[in-house]
Amino acid sequence: MPSVSEKGRLMPQSPIRKLVPFAEEAKKRGVNVIHLNIGQPDIKTPQVALDAVKNNNLEIVEYSRTEGSEEYRQKLAGYYAKNDISVTAQDIIVTTGGSEALSFTIGSITDFGDEIIVPEPFYANYNGFATAAGVNVVPIVSSIENNFALPPISEFEKLITDRTKAILICNPGNPTGYLYTPEEIGQLAEIVKKHDIFLISDEVYREFTYDGRKHYSILQENGLEQNAIIVDSVSKRYSMCGARIGCMVSKNKEVVRTAIKFAQARLSPPTFAQIASEAALDTPQSYFEEVKEEYLGRRDLLIAELSKIDGVKIGRPQGAFYCIAELPVSDTDHFAQWLLSDFNVDGETVMVAPAAGFYASEGYGKNQVRIAYVLEKESLKRAVSILKQALNSYKG
Amino acid sequence: MPSVSEKGRLMPQSPIRKLVPFAEEAKKRGVNVIHLNIGQPDIKTPQVALDAVKNNNLEIVEYSRTEGSEEYRQKLAGYYAKNDISVTAQDIIVTTGGSEALSFTIGSITDFGDEIIVPEPFYANYNGFATAAGVNVVPIVSSIENNFALPPISEFEKLITDRTKAILICNPGNPTGYLYTPEEIGQLAEIVKKHDIFLISDEVYREFTYDGRKHYSILQENGLEQNAIIVDSVSKRYSMCGARIGCMVSKNKEVVRTAIKFAQARLSPPTFAQIASEAALDTPQSYFEEVKEEYLGRRDLLIAELSKIDGVKIGRPQGAFYCIAELPVSDTDHFAQWLLSDFNVDGETVMVAPAAGFYASEGYGKNQVRIAYVLEKESLKRAVSILKQALNSYKG
Repeated sequence: MPSVSEKGRLMPQSPIRKLVPFAEEAKKRGVNVIHLNIGQPDIKTPQVALDAVKNNNLEIVEYSRTEGSEEYRQKLAGYYAKNDISVTAQDIIVTTGGSEALSFTIGSITDFGDEIIVPEPFYANYNGFATAAGVNVVPIVSSIENNFALPPISEFEKLITDRTKAILICNPGNPTGYLYTPEEIGQLAEIVKKHDIFLISDEVYREFTYDGRKHYSILQENGLEQNAIIVDSVSKRYSMCGARIGCMVSKNKEVVRTAIKFAQARLSPPTFAQIASEAALDTPQSYFEEVKEEYLGRRDLLIAELSKIDGVKIGRPQGAFYCIAELPVSDTDHFAQWLLSDFNVDGETVMVAPAAGFYASEGYGKNQVRIAYVLEKESLKRAVSILKQALNSYKG
Repeated sequence: MPSVSEKGRLMPQSPIRKLVPFAEEAKKRGVNVIHLNIGQPDIKTPQVALDAVKNNNLEIVEYSRTEGSEEYRQKLAGYYAKNDISVTAQDIIVTTGGSEALSFTIGSITDFGDEIIVPEPFYANYNGFATAAGVNVVPIVSSIENNFALPPISEFEKLITDRTKAILICNPGNPTGYLYTPEEIGQLAEIVKKHDIFLISDEVYREFTYDGRKHYSILQENGLEQNAIIVDSVSKRYSMCGARIGCMVSKNKEVVRTAIKFAQARLSPPTFAQIASEAALDTPQSYFEEVKEEYLGRRDLLIAELSKIDGVKIGRPQGAFYCIAELPVSDTDHFAQWLLSDFNVDGETVMVAPAAGFYASEGYGKNQVRIAYVLEKESLKRAVSILKQALNSYKG
């Protein structure tokens, strides 16, 4: 029997995937599982986007342009302008989710055996895209004690080799909720320009910033134009993760020209989802204000409740809708599984994402979990209460 | 300024892309361009698929399951059963177009530097996916004199090395229209089993077969289960290329498990398009009969008209909706450009796809073009007449 590739063997499992059968079994036993593990918001998709799809008049669902329709890219440029990011339609390639934007970016700037430096903990799928391309993720640890702030630039310099092609950040961060300051972006800009490498910024949570803080994009940094590549997506912005529309944005024309060749191979991004995404750009500002207020309330509740549990340490998220919590257990992989298989409070338990999968450094994150606050406050409060009781009962 | 990857430089341009500016200029000059170059059918998408999207009741456009929704995969298994292909939902991963199915397949079974043998001419994007994965396409020439039949198995054996991981066929073929016989599939089965490699079959044109011939899938071949991987798509079947839904099908559980890890990294296939694709499975048989009759009429017209031109040689397509034509010119890249920039008949010209891009062997296909018969007969007839006059005027 022919066997799979070495690369295929190395491809990481999603950190949550191995818990899924345990969650399914819990449900079969009649246990209600509260999902703190997923980034699927419960927020309604803007009506204007849903209506555009319902009212579409296509008779033939044709390919769109490889780089996305001209109209949508024009409107996207307007969206960026409103966010103080000055780009044209020619700087934008519409992709199938932020995922594909990252995959095109990695393909365009790295070869087999190259390296990308990523502050960890990081979005676990970065590992998948890197493995698929034969690229090594070189982690640099950011710590919960510093609320996951940018590690000192001197630490980055130590890791840069002649195979280093880029630094990749997520801002605001999944799974940390950390929001980089303009000063931090400035420091990253210095170093990538000095070493003639790229700075890739995953900015899919741009709108979700709290405490009066404002997102600062790498494309707002003067002089960084040729080094900067933004990965973006409609998934979280408009709570339409299933649309699978994102984009890759760069002022570096060689990068865009190259990425378009990767895009050509897969022909075009999905047509119905582009209709939804273009319409979503007309979402009223009030939608975002309501959503942000909702997330802010959830964050504050989550932090307040988690803080009451002995031995729990938490980062304070300033953006996105995740938080990393350190628990008084030695192996959250086991704890998360135990929560599903051996524990419940009045027929209810919680599912959390063990954080080791968000680290590339061996042994890190084993006492941490990622909690997504994409549930209404009532459930969130109940979930933390269950977590507290579980920590009391858990023997390790 | 940081530069792009070697891989990015090597990524092939679409064979048609460089002609696009010439087509746009022709249109600006008021010339009507008849497109024989593209695989975008003019056939209407089944109403049942369009209606399902228009009538969807989603309030949140959520991620679907990574491998596609259970319901859709169950129904897909039913579709395959009707086509004498015995698979279960567990053998199917729903992908973003056939493109992604091919990309997951290549990732799952090949490593950097591995080889895949492909009879040429082949669908040009195979080159793109192979280049992106650092895999070498090893071509084996099939010739217009034999109507692009499978080259002798002894020729395959000469090319197999310890880096060979698969043979990849497209059946019915784009760009040849060739339909492999059960005997040919049997020969391929022998050789892949003997050498313990995979047989990948791109079967996206399964329904489009002519002259009373029936498609024979690699998964109908007994004993080939562990070696066979099907790449499939709704794009041509239901004339919904823009949906971007395909699937990868294999009975080899290790392959499926591995491909799911690639699928996890990109989260899920597009939700709206899955709604359309699931509904499309209820398309009445009469739709296919009408569509096939239409294509058959176009094929016969195209062959009859092309045959009347001196010095033109054609393959006889038995499936799909393409044909390779050999023209009495030395460089169809130049001829195709000239058609757009220097020629018209009463304000009308044609765009063809130069065939060199469908070959990996240097120098092949330079006197061939691919013609897609996805236009109504009236336009097709006019297009061939323009081509005939162009060949009379063209000085090379």
